[in-house]
Amino acid sequence: MTICTAVQAVRERAALTHCITNSVVTGFTANVTLALGASPAMVDIVGEAGDFARVADGLLTNLGTPTPEQRAAILEAVTAAQEAGTPWVLDPVAVGSLKHRTALAHQLLELRPTVIRGNPSEIIALAGFGVGGRGVDTADSVGSAMAAAESLAERFGSTVAVSGPMDVIIAPDRRASVGGGSALLTKVTGGGCALGAVIAAFCGSLADPFEATVAAHATYSAAAELAESRSQGPGSFAVAFLDALSAVGPEQIESISVDYVNTRTEELAR
Amino acid sequence: MTICTAVQAVRERAALTHCITNSVVTGFTANVTLALGASPAMVDIVGEAGDFARVADGLLTNLGTPTPEQRAAILEAVTAAQEAGTPWVLDPVAVGSLKHRTALAHQLLELRPTVIRGNPSEIIALAGFGVGGRGVDTADSVGSAMAAAESLAERFGSTVAVSGPMDVIIAPDRRASVGGGSALLTKVTGGGCALGAVIAAFCGSLADPFEATVAAHATYSAAAELAESRSQGPGSFAVAFLDALSAVGPEQIESISVDYVNTRTEELAR
Amino acid sequence: MTICTAVQAVRERAALTHCITNSVVTGFTANVTLALGASPAMVDIVGEAGDFARVADGLLTNLGTPTPEQRAAILEAVTAAQEAGTPWVLDPVAVGSLKHRTALAHQLLELRPTVIRGNPSEIIALAGFGVGGRGVDTADSVGSAMAAAESLAERFGSTVAVSGPMDVIIAPDRRASVGGGSALLTKVTGGGCALGAVIAAFCGSLADPFEATVAAHATYSAAAELAESRSQGPGSFAVAFLDALSAVGPEQIESISVDYVNTRTEELAR
Repeated sequence: MTICTAVQAVRERAALTHCITNSVVTGFTANVTLALGASPAMVDIVGEAGDFARVADGLLTNLGTPTPEQRAAILEAVTAAQEAGTPWVLDPVAVGSLKHRTALAHQLLELRPTVIRGNPSEIIALAGFGVGGRGVDTADSVGSAMAAAESLAERFGSTVAVSGPMDVIIAPDRRASVGGGSALLTKVTGGGCALGAVIAAFCGSLADPFEATVAAHATYSAAAELAESRSQGPGSFAVAFLDALSAVGPEQIESISVDYVNTRTEELAR
Repeated sequence: MTICTAVQAVRERAALTHCITNSVVTGFTANVTLALGASPAMVDIVGEAGDFARVADGLLTNLGTPTPEQRAAILEAVTAAQEAGTPWVLDPVAVGSLKHRTALAHQLLELRPTVIRGNPSEIIALAGFGVGGRGVDTADSVGSAMAAAESLAERFGSTVAVSGPMDVIIAPDRRASVGGGSALLTKVTGGGCALGAVIAAFCGSLADPFEATVAAHATYSAAAELAESRSQGPGSFAVAFLDALSAVGPEQIESISVDYVNTRTEELAR
Repeated sequence: MTICTAVQAVRERAALTHCITNSVVTGFTANVTLALGASPAMVDIVGEAGDFARVADGLLTNLGTPTPEQRAAILEAVTAAQEAGTPWVLDPVAVGSLKHRTALAHQLLELRPTVIRGNPSEIIALAGFGVGGRGVDTADSVGSAMAAAESLAERFGSTVAVSGPMDVIIAPDRRASVGGGSALLTKVTGGGCALGAVIAAFCGSLADPFEATVAAHATYSAAAELAESRSQGPGSFAVAFLDALSAVGPEQIESISVDYVNTRTEELAR
């Protein structure tokens, strides 16, 4: 399957994407998911989250503002997702020293997320290899998070995606890197968080979570490149990014460099 | 009263519009209400919501992310609105199988909303004629929701508005259809939810809820048409829609088709 | 220090700006803070807010939608900020008659905020000189809030900023007025609230809260003027404002009128 056919699959299915995400980025995340062609729904309360996760195509759990209600709703949703076979994404925002999200992230790891996505500091902290970033920003490079990402992939059977100037996606037996994108994504709140919803939408439309995660990153990067060329700053970039996601096609996606490596880290590092 | 004079009334009054709405669309809803020329306030906690509903011109209750705090605040606000004579709108987002919102929606129905607005699947589910849509999207056509809308209007004395390519507004003794608009509204989160706030603002400025609801839909459609002509996708559409709402006047509004039928459904169906 | 070097200090530090703010404006506030060049983080739950306030450069507490969780988190954060020496801003949105926010605002006053910012009605109500505005809008002029602002500055040792067509910033021993800006800021939700985060970012980067608050207002006004010249309404203004904040430099800032008065009100009033 090519990335372009993957995007087509998401759009044809209008993948029902269940998002339990932080209060800062709910609107942008929904708009990104809609622009992609999927159908987002933010069902984040106890007593409803589980039922919805059963019928959704994919689920995002983002720990950015984990109120007690959301923490309980996330556990309810993930438990239901597991039972129903709904693929689910963990985005451990600012994990490290903040206690509620850190405890919850480790509890969720044990439930074996389909995909884990984060910035390098988050992946390093989640793997127990470091203490986390500076607020919600990374303090580490993508390269420095490789061992942590591998460790998470092996221990929990997850696909692990590390975001940066070059994204790296690692599954227990495969890896890929995705280039392109735009640094302006780091100047728009939800630039990373909304990618979690996009990954959930792709996972809800394709059988293979690794391929879905790679395709999600490549599509996101293609739209970001297109948007950057049409913007004058972070405000107009966010607007152009939504326009671009709704229009992105083969021409843009094929310009994104995607490299697959079906080997171990040691060899990649050569 | 013409629709243009209705818009003028909302702007002159700067209708104080009390919104208790879902966490995904709060910002967009406030911006839409401001762009219209009204004054939104999101007072959604227990102990404040009732007091505010007493002084507001109109109240929106939207069930999109009904936390326990919001559920209690909505009941407090609606009770106060009834006592004070504040018109109030019920938007039963994704009602059907999700249990908390569905139970609350039925409880609110008994309090006789001034206006009920939703997509066809929501209106059908609320009336007990079906099970609801797919996530927050409709699975039914406007036409198929007519009997449900009539039933709600008769049982609860409400004006019932069903959104779609052609909107239909039904009161116990009257009905109207409003054309125009833009399909891009379904690609912007809050495109439907913010209409609930606009209806509340109009109801807070005009004496007749049916006329207010028709005028709200026509104004919204006129702004959406204008915005679509100036946009390249859902991102730029949302921006242009706010600009258009703040500028919309007689020229745009008169281009929207509004048909009144002062008869029963059976005749309309001819 | 000039205002331009102050802006540079915020950007070089990428001031870690802890925001506990209302649910309507979280996204816009984060985007404004990012566009400025600071690093926002919305940590608003009990058990995390205190720990984060200790490491943040500045803290904003905004009372716009004060859920029970947020009310407790705000007290936790402010207590920690005081212990750690983190400067903190109080924005008492719609204080006056709504009971939870009003009680909390008075409790926070006793903890002596570094900066208090609000519209005239909020400042008047907070000082006990009046009953508050109309919803979240002011019902009073900046001039009529001078005595209230002075009273707050003297009693609590705070810098007090009153927003309006001409902003006034009052410290116990100094005052300044800042011109420029755009009325469109009042047509974008969070136009005032996000300024609170900008003040917190400046306070986290400069030693003197009065100078920081003046610089924050001047920078904000400069960006707003630039944005207004590039917009067609409130939607495009909000987008252009983010672009402008990220680009604003000496040329725009020097065009903003800033007048310092190192005297008492009586003399200013001459």
